[in-house]
Amino acid sequence: MEQLSKIGRYNFLAEPFHCDFSNHLFMGHLGNHLLNAADFHSNERGYGMNYLNTVNKTWVLSRLAIEMEEMPKAYDRFFVETWVDCAMKFFTSRNFKIIDESGFVYGYGKSVWAMIDLDTRQPVDILMVRNGLVNKYIEEEYLCPIERPSRVKMLVKSEPIRSIETYYSDVDVNGHINSVRYIEHVLNLWDLSWYKEYFIKRFEIAYVAESHQGDKLNFYLEQNEYSVFNVRITKSNADEEEKEVCRCSLLFVKRD
Amino acid sequence: MEQLSKIGRYNFLAEPFHCDFSNHLFMGHLGNHLLNAADFHSNERGYGMNYLNTVNKTWVLSRLAIEMEEMPKAYDRFFVETWVDCAMKFFTSRNFKIIDESGFVYGYGKSVWAMIDLDTRQPVDILMVRNGLVNKYIEEEYLCPIERPSRVKMLVKSEPIRSIETYYSDVDVNGHINSVRYIEHVLNLWDLSWYKEYFIKRFEIAYVAESHQGDKLNFYLEQNEYSVFNVRITKSNADEEEKEVCRCSLLFVKRD
Repeated sequence: MEQLSKIGRYNFLAEPFHCDFSNHLFMGHLGNHLLNAADFHSNERGYGMNYLNTVNKTWVLSRLAIEMEEMPKAYDRFFVETWVDCAMKFFTSRNFKIIDESGFVYGYGKSVWAMIDLDTRQPVDILMVRNGLVNKYIEEEYLCPIERPSRVKMLVKSEPIRSIETYYSDVDVNGHINSVRYIEHVLNLWDLSWYKEYFIKRFEIAYVAESHQGDKLNFYLEQNEYSVFNVRITKSNADEEEKEVCRCSLLFVKRD
Repeated sequence: MEQLSKIGRYNFLAEPFHCDFSNHLFMGHLGNHLLNAADFHSNERGYGMNYLNTVNKTWVLSRLAIEMEEMPKAYDRFFVETWVDCAMKFFTSRNFKIIDESGFVYGYGKSVWAMIDLDTRQPVDILMVRNGLVNKYIEEEYLCPIERPSRVKMLVKSEPIRSIETYYSDVDVNGHINSVRYIEHVLNLWDLSWYKEYFIKRFEIAYVAESHQGDKLNFYLEQNEYSVFNVRITKSNADEEEKEVCRCSLLFVKRD
């Protein structure tokens, strides 16, 4: 059987009800499309969730960075290309390129994934799965010219600027708050009036721990010397001490 | 040019990140697919948003009822068939059938739409648009065997069981709170533990007025003699008196 190409290419439509007031795709929905592309790509090549679930393992998204020139507009048809450029024992690095039919590049994404055992929730050796199958599909040449997700530095002391409850619609099939929902909740920290003036040039998120329905999510906001906004999300509930669940950084640029 | 068929058929995938803890599509995402199907169907036939926006008009969803035997599971490919079974001066009635490749029927939907002028926000005569073009595509024979959306009766006096703020991600391209978001917010009134026991057999929503980012949404809940839950959503803000924005009714059935 011929081997599939290293780069997968999936087409999506910027659905009108997935667009914001400016008629452009919400960053959260774009994130969802990237996760779908990753899922399709890895399943087709035999190391996706569909196989992993049969051996009691799963992929866990650890970091995601998205950097955009422009967001797709309502009804735009676009492609997400995705490929793995590096696989190590405990992490793989997966890239994304978001383009249209004519080759115009909307932007890029970079992500880091771990694999865990579903019972122990501990990391497992990625290269042990199917004799290191993922290594057959490493693509190192194709360009993804944005910076890797980096460590988001935040001061420890500050007060949350918002706390929200989590509900049924926030929870994914694993019983955890959905990765994309965090993105939406973070973007909600800014008002419509802010988005009329500013465009999200780069969004980055690092997932630290899982949260569950009923947890309260607390949002801490800081702005660093490079005009980057950093957000820490913690969870709090009756049974545990407050605990960090993820960190984000956002770079906004003024709209023309 | 040959006329398109009266019934449109669009295929969708139950995306894994659009599924709830039980691995089945969220009702809100299904609602979104129905709205997409309506949008595609009407655009292809020349009386959709794409044309209406050029003459300063738009469709407004007035009522939607969804009744399901079963929800699509993650990765299920399914079809939404949609057709208009009746068009009058101020309303059209549009049906939906949700089926899989083998013909299994997941469920049905019924909706009522008005058309408004974008400046006056007043209803306009649907049959005046393109010489009553919509009438060329009326399909009265194809079955949609569920009840029409009905008037939801509620007592006037009660206290809200929840009030929430509205944010950037809640707002659609018209600057209003997205129709699908109301569905999500209503379903969030019940906990994960409830959904482990109960399945949403029928969901119905009537849109009464528009709300905007910054409005607070208040949820009033009642249960009637037929074990149907009714929900009224109102908006409140600094400038206006509290005002109803929509009403829903939900019929839950015990899971096997």
